[in-house]
Amino acid sequence: MFLQKKIGVLGAGQLGRMLAQASADWLLPIHGLDADNSAPAAEFYHSFQCGSFADYDTVIAFGKDKDVVTIEIEHVNTKALRVLSDMGIKVFPQPEVIETIQDKGLQKLFYAQKNIPTAPFELVEDKANLENAIKQGHIKYPFVQKSRKAGYDGKGVIIINNEDECHSSFDCPSLIEKKASIQKELAVIVSRHENGETSVFPVVEMLFNAKANLVENVLCPALIPESIENQCKELAIHIIENLNMIGILAVEFFWQTDGSLWVNECAPRPHNSGHHTIEACYTSQYQQHLRAICGLSPGDTRMKVPFALMVNLLGDEGETGAVWYEGLEEVMNMPKTYVHLYGKKDTKPFRKMGHVTLLGNTAEEVVFGANKITNTLRIIQKPT
Amino acid sequence: MFLQKKIGVLGAGQLGRMLAQASADWLLPIHGLDADNSAPAAEFYHSFQCGSFADYDTVIAFGKDKDVVTIEIEHVNTKALRVLSDMGIKVFPQPEVIETIQDKGLQKLFYAQKNIPTAPFELVEDKANLENAIKQGHIKYPFVQKSRKAGYDGKGVIIINNEDECHSSFDCPSLIEKKASIQKELAVIVSRHENGETSVFPVVEMLFNAKANLVENVLCPALIPESIENQCKELAIHIIENLNMIGILAVEFFWQTDGSLWVNECAPRPHNSGHHTIEACYTSQYQQHLRAICGLSPGDTRMKVPFALMVNLLGDEGETGAVWYEGLEEVMNMPKTYVHLYGKKDTKPFRKMGHVTLLGNTAEEVVFGANKITNTLRIIQKPT
Repeated sequence: MFLQKKIGVLGAGQLGRMLAQASADWLLPIHGLDADNSAPAAEFYHSFQCGSFADYDTVIAFGKDKDVVTIEIEHVNTKALRVLSDMGIKVFPQPEVIETIQDKGLQKLFYAQKNIPTAPFELVEDKANLENAIKQGHIKYPFVQKSRKAGYDGKGVIIINNEDECHSSFDCPSLIEKKASIQKELAVIVSRHENGETSVFPVVEMLFNAKANLVENVLCPALIPESIENQCKELAIHIIENLNMIGILAVEFFWQTDGSLWVNECAPRPHNSGHHTIEACYTSQYQQHLRAICGLSPGDTRMKVPFALMVNLLGDEGETGAVWYEGLEEVMNMPKTYVHLYGKKDTKPFRKMGHVTLLGNTAEEVVFGANKITNTLRIIQKPT
Repeated sequence: MFLQKKIGVLGAGQLGRMLAQASADWLLPIHGLDADNSAPAAEFYHSFQCGSFADYDTVIAFGKDKDVVTIEIEHVNTKALRVLSDMGIKVFPQPEVIETIQDKGLQKLFYAQKNIPTAPFELVEDKANLENAIKQGHIKYPFVQKSRKAGYDGKGVIIINNEDECHSSFDCPSLIEKKASIQKELAVIVSRHENGETSVFPVVEMLFNAKANLVENVLCPALIPESIENQCKELAIHIIENLNMIGILAVEFFWQTDGSLWVNECAPRPHNSGHHTIEACYTSQYQQHLRAICGLSPGDTRMKVPFALMVNLLGDEGETGAVWYEGLEEVMNMPKTYVHLYGKKDTKPFRKMGHVTLLGNTAEEVVFGANKITNTLRIIQKPT
């Protein structure tokens, strides 16, 4: 029976925390691994082991007595996951999928190979290589540089508009992309189950904090033409089927001013753009991921309510130290407003400390609520 | 700020478990007390103390460093709660409310005093006293006998239809009620907050397992005339205001064949008739209870979806021992179906082992689903 499966999760951040919360009612024993003893999910896992998910031996030792191993972050030791998979342990998403996605260069090559629309790109080895390509005219301003590995939450990404800005470019193996002419940034979560069934959540639109290059708000459903909604969903299914992956995959898109869609990038795990599914959809992204990796069929991805908006609670700029949530009580008393705090002890600028989901009957209602939250709640250092 | 409140809960059953789950996203530190180390909520509380909530010294020691003390079962030591309250600790529901409700005799006297419609009743001290009252014609067959204290989940309640059945009557202080002529059994959950605000959830109807005298299914909303819905809600508000209580209160009604309503009894805590609110309503009964006792205003009690039906998962008759959930995978794969298992190690006949909530667009859809669950899932002793 599915609930006898022993599940191991690499990582214990907020995504792992919400995954563990979703597993509790099914009595699914979820065990976690993370180098940070006080990570948000640590106390929510059935058991928690402190250790690095990037370390080969640690991952082998952690995974070898599990039935299923999954991830909540992609920067894990995939060599170890390949060995676990060879031992007969189900590793979902599969190690080769994680390898393709954790290297933004390989990810782009996969899109090119499968004729998936994406920004034109070049791969460079280092800064000298990049400057040379600019000189030779292969790369033109403005462009986006993304370090191939270990980028996360807006880190490892820079926009270079002209020669003057070129000194800030990264000196590492990177992906150079043509800058998109963005109308809206969209995302969709797709799941694929062991029997090959797929399911797609409604498409969302993401609103960014320009300073931190981080998603600030997610609106569901996106206010876009039905044809764009359908294209996003079809592309997401196309990608997960071509990856041959089991689990959930978040796919981010640029909807450009000329009406075309480019796939930006994807993440083979629960995603920030799917938090609202907890309250807004019949099935949450966390339940769906567990369903996918435990051999269950997909849950209903439709919305229970007309609109949802997720507000990331980011640490205030210039505030570092033991956390304090100023104005929280006022937010708690707003109608149809759901506060999720991740239990991180310390705040720092733009750190994801929690999120709030708002439900409403119109887009205006939830956008109004989000503005009120932005003006009410401040995540600061605890007053002494 | 509300989230600095240290909350103590007497009891660690499934109600405490779901209360703790609801508190996690708010980082509310909830501490629990129960004599059973392996009770369903034990591992979900921020901290857990093993000890009897019926013992005076234990409750004092547990409660004295808390800001708020609440209950998930009413059979607690209220003398200790009175002392804690006198020490300035917020005890919600208040000790005097628990005392009124935990004694079914006092509860009935309260209804009579406040002109709340309820079955005509007599109080008797013991079996001899009962038999005497029958002889003298004060009590007529058929009647319902309820032991005044410690009744729970259908225990301590018996229907005596005639003289032949009278030998099974209880020999203890009890409440003797006229048997209702039931059209439907209804229930409603009302909350009252520190600022005096009240809120009411939609009225539900309860379907009983005749053998165990236990609720088997709860349908929300009840299929009843609007006038009955409104009467139930008004009575519930009238009761909680007259009790002057803070927290949530479940009120059960008999809707009689002549169209009149009788209050059956009430429970000053989260209740089996409100489990469906987790998925079906904008606010769950657990969130509402926390809101009430933490000084927050009421959340929206309306439904997100047209219909919900809760199925209690009761241990199969004749099955005792380590639990096994036969047919669970099939139920997990039903659409819009939410399984909640309580993590009890052992099953026994009619023990509440979990529940399933079904959501749907029509009453027929959810009733159909409930029948499928009843025919699919069996809670039995683990096959060897």
